[in-house]
Amino acid sequence: MRALVHVTLKPDVLDPQGKAIQHACSSLGYGAVEEVRQGKLFEVALSANSEEAARKVLAELSEKLLANPVIEDYEIVRIEA
Amino acid sequence: MRALVHVTLKPDVLDPQGKAIQHACSSLGYGAVEEVRQGKLFEVALSANSEEAARKVLAELSEKLLANPVIEDYEIVRIEA
Repeated sequence: MRALVHVTLKPDVLDPQGKAIQHACSSLGYGAVEEVRQGKLFEVALSANSEEAARKVLAELSEKLLANPVIEDYEIVRIEA
Repeated sequence: MRALVHVTLKPDVLDPQGKAIQHACSSLGYGAVEEVRQGKLFEVALSANSEEAARKVLAELSEKLLANPVIEDYEIVRIEA
């Protein structure tokens, strides 16, 4: 199965990298860009008997390894066979 | 408008970071994880008159700033008012 996981900073956590990108947009003449926040995505291929089993493994992995639950949220965006 | 852009390594580009994560999964007991590839995501807030105009700006930005078109692909995943 193939899955896609998004990891983003929690809304109240500052994102200096996103801020820098937003400034760079302005410098390039794209003043219409008001805010940029950067996150991570993970494309995961895994073997599992069911979507439910895959989701369980992905949730555990996200909490232990892919995201820092103190400052980041994760979302299992899709799982496909 | 708010948009989401995915930036991923092209399929034939090696991803040592993803490989390291996959090894870490194995070490944590998740042998079912066969492959991990890491990418970036950008949440962009921008002002535009139409979805089409926003898409044009985002495509330009992705090619100039968010992605390295030599080794990375980008996808404008969604644009919402």
